[in-house]
Amino acid sequence: MARLVMKFGGTSVADIDRIRVVARHVKREVDAGHQVAVVVSAMAGTTNQLVEWTREASPLHDAREYDTVVSSGEQVTSGLLAIVLQSMGVSARSWQGWQIPLRTDETHGSARIGGIENSLLVSRLEENQVAVVAGFQGISDSGRITTFGRGGSDTSAVAIAAAINADRCDIYTDVDGVYTSDPRIVSAATRLERVSYEEMLELASLGAKVLQTRSVEMAMKYGVRMMVRSSFEDPESLAPAFEEGNGGVGTLVCDEDEIVEKHVVSGITYSRDEAKITLLEVQDQPGVSAQIFGPLADANINVDMIVQNVSANGKQTDITFTVPVTDFERARDVITPLKNKLGYSDLLGATDIVKVSVIGVGMRSHAGVAAQMFKALADKNINIQAISTSEIKISVLIEAVYTELAVRTLHSVYGLDMN
Amino acid sequence: MARLVMKFGGTSVADIDRIRVVARHVKREVDAGHQVAVVVSAMAGTTNQLVEWTREASPLHDAREYDTVVSSGEQVTSGLLAIVLQSMGVSARSWQGWQIPLRTDETHGSARIGGIENSLLVSRLEENQVAVVAGFQGISDSGRITTFGRGGSDTSAVAIAAAINADRCDIYTDVDGVYTSDPRIVSAATRLERVSYEEMLELASLGAKVLQTRSVEMAMKYGVRMMVRSSFEDPESLAPAFEEGNGGVGTLVCDEDEIVEKHVVSGITYSRDEAKITLLEVQDQPGVSAQIFGPLADANINVDMIVQNVSANGKQTDITFTVPVTDFERARDVITPLKNKLGYSDLLGATDIVKVSVIGVGMRSHAGVAAQMFKALADKNINIQAISTSEIKISVLIEAVYTELAVRTLHSVYGLDMN
Repeated sequence: MARLVMKFGGTSVADIDRIRVVARHVKREVDAGHQVAVVVSAMAGTTNQLVEWTREASPLHDAREYDTVVSSGEQVTSGLLAIVLQSMGVSARSWQGWQIPLRTDETHGSARIGGIENSLLVSRLEENQVAVVAGFQGISDSGRITTFGRGGSDTSAVAIAAAINADRCDIYTDVDGVYTSDPRIVSAATRLERVSYEEMLELASLGAKVLQTRSVEMAMKYGVRMMVRSSFEDPESLAPAFEEGNGGVGTLVCDEDEIVEKHVVSGITYSRDEAKITLLEVQDQPGVSAQIFGPLADANINVDMIVQNVSANGKQTDITFTVPVTDFERARDVITPLKNKLGYSDLLGATDIVKVSVIGVGMRSHAGVAAQMFKALADKNINIQAISTSEIKISVLIEAVYTELAVRTLHSVYGLDMN
Repeated sequence: MARLVMKFGGTSVADIDRIRVVARHVKREVDAGHQVAVVVSAMAGTTNQLVEWTREASPLHDAREYDTVVSSGEQVTSGLLAIVLQSMGVSARSWQGWQIPLRTDETHGSARIGGIENSLLVSRLEENQVAVVAGFQGISDSGRITTFGRGGSDTSAVAIAAAINADRCDIYTDVDGVYTSDPRIVSAATRLERVSYEEMLELASLGAKVLQTRSVEMAMKYGVRMMVRSSFEDPESLAPAFEEGNGGVGTLVCDEDEIVEKHVVSGITYSRDEAKITLLEVQDQPGVSAQIFGPLADANINVDMIVQNVSANGKQTDITFTVPVTDFERARDVITPLKNKLGYSDLLGATDIVKVSVIGVGMRSHAGVAAQMFKALADKNINIQAISTSEIKISVLIEAVYTELAVRTLHSVYGLDMN
C-alpha cells in the first residue's frame, strides 16, 4: 500500500469519454491497494473560453474576478470525474481549493502556495475514498479564489503530494515519458528511465514541454518523486504504480542520488525561440555593458547569451547577445536610441538561429564534455556563434538550418542513440 | 437611498453583450444612490450543458457532485458581471454561496435555505460596493456546495433581500410585468401595477411562468416586496427603483394591504397540462374514494380536480378526476388493475381538455364571482366538465378547443380588457 497523487491535464479530460479513461487509470491504482488523490485540469478548451470571456468583459480586468471565472473549469472536471469513479464502484469525492483548504498568497492569476491543511484529505484517503482535487487553484487569506497561472495543475499536484506525504506524484500526459531528445527530429531518441530534478529543470525550460518548471522546482524542494506517464495508453495495460519495473513505461524525476547508472549527458534540446543582436564597434570602455543591458532589463527583456570579443585595437569591440524572438523588435527599439551614447557603428539582427543544448549532471565530474561538443559541430562544419554554460549544461547558438544535423550529431556523439 | 436586490436570469446574461446591458441596469440604480446586491443565473444554455455532462458521466449520479458541477455556471456569470461593472467605474465584487456564506440543509439538488450570514455583504454594501451574488447555490454544514433546483435564482434573490433587509427585490426578466392574461391569446390583456403574494402564487402555479413559486412563498413569509421588470428595455430609459410612478413599467408583488385599488378579479389563466379520467358506474359505498386516490397518491400522481356525481340509484356513481397530462398513462395503469375491486364498468380518458382559472383576492368579499363565470361560459355554449375552487380562485375544466374563447370572454366579463 502506498499513497499516490495522479495528475491529468486538459487533453486527458477533454470529454466524458476521456474522463472515463482517466477513471480507469485511477481504478487500477485503487484496486492495487493504493490511497489516491487525483488532481485534474479543466477540460481542454474550457479555460481558453473562460479567459476569452473575461477579455471580452474588459481588456483590463480585476485579477480576483478573473480567478473566480477561470477556476470554474477545474471545478466542473473534479465533479464529473468523481461521478464517473462512483459509477465504477470507486468511492470518490471532489475537492475545490477552498474546501481543502489549499492556502495561497494574494497574487491572483499567479498565486504562490502558502500551506495546505492536510487533515481533511488524509482522513478521507484513510477511509479509502479517492480525493478528486480541482487543480490550478487555492484560496487567499481574504477568502477569494486564487489561481496559479497556466499549467498550474502540475504545481497543485506536487503541492498536494508534499502536503499528504505521498510516495509519488504521477503526472499523466500525452507522452509516455521524458526523452533524450525530440523524437520528431531524432528517431533514435530513447525514453529516460530516470532523470534528476536539476536535469529536468534544464530540459523543461529549454523546450521539452512535459512538466511545468515551477512544479519541478517545488518537487526538488520538498523531495517529491514525480513520474511522467502516458494517459493515452490502455489503462489496464499499464502496471500499477511501483510495479513498473525496469521495462515499465514512464520517466521518474527524482533526486540525483537515486540514479545509479549515471549518464554524462542525459539529453540534447534545442530552442528556436531565440533572436540575436550584434552591435558592431562599440566603444570598449568600463560601464558600456551596463549601458546596454540596463535599459533592456528595465524593459523586462530577458537577455540569455552574451558574447563580447576581445578588443583588437583596445578601443572598439563587437557585442552579441540573444533575446526571446518575441521581444526582438522591442529590444531593437530600446537599443537604437542609444546609438550615439554607445557609439556603435551598426546594429545587426538575426532570427534564423537556434540554441542547441547538451544537459547532464555527469558534467560536474567529467571534463571534456564541452570540447567534445565543439569538435563534433566543427566536424560537420557548423559554426558556433555564441556559447553559454551552467554547471550541468552547455548551450551554443548556431544557424537554424543546421538544427537537425546538430541535434542528431550530438545525440550520437554522447552515446544516447537507441541500440 | 434604498437597499435593493436585482436579479437577472439566464437569457438576460446569455453573452457578454447582454451582461453589459445588465451592468447598465445596475449602474442606473447605483447612480441613483442605492445600495445594490445583484443575483445572477448561469448564462443561458450553460446549465443545460453542465447537466448533460453529469448525465453522460452517469445516469445515476451523486447529487453532491452534480451540485459541484452545475453551480459553476453562476460562478462564471458573477465574475464576468463584476468585471464589466468595474470597467464602467462601478465598484463591485462577486460572491459565491460559500463566501457569504448562504447556509442550506443537505438536500443537494433542491436544498432549502437555512440562514444567511449578512455581515460581510452588508459591510461591503455600506462601502457602496455592488455585491454580485451567484444565484441558485449555497453551502451545507458539511462544507459542500448545494443548489436549489431549476429557477432557484429567484429564491436566492428573495433570501438575500430578506437577509440584508432590502427595501425591494427586483426580478428582471424577458417580460415587463405580470399580465391579466396571456397576451398571446388575449390582445386586450393589461399589465398589473400591483398583485398580492397570494394572487401571484396562483398565477405562477397556473401557468404565468414569470416567478418561481417558491420565491413568492418566501417573499410572502418574510414580507419582501418584489418587482417584476424587463431586462430587455433600454436601461437608461427606465426610471430608477422607487421613482417608477404609476406610469412606470413593472409589476409590484406585495402584501394585499398595499393594494389600494382592488380588483375583484386580477387575472385569467389557463393550463393545457391536464388530463381527465372518468370511472363509470363505480360502486357507491364508503371508502371507494380512498381505494381510488390512495394508490394514485402512492404512485406520486398529483390529482387536481375531483367530481363525483350524486348517485341516481343509490348504488352506482361516476367519478371524474384530473391528473397532469405527463402522468396520464401511469394513472391509467394504476387504476386498471383495480377494476374488479372498484367494480366500475368503464374507464374513459381524455387529454383534449384545458383548465381555465379566474383569480382574485377580491373574491373573498364579493359574492357571485363564480356564478358570473358559469353564466358567461354557458352564454357561449361552453360545457363545464369539472369545477374546483379555493378562497381566491375558481377553476373549470372545459374542452381544449374552447380555450381562447373562454379566456377572452372571461377577461372581458370581469372588466380586465384594456380601455
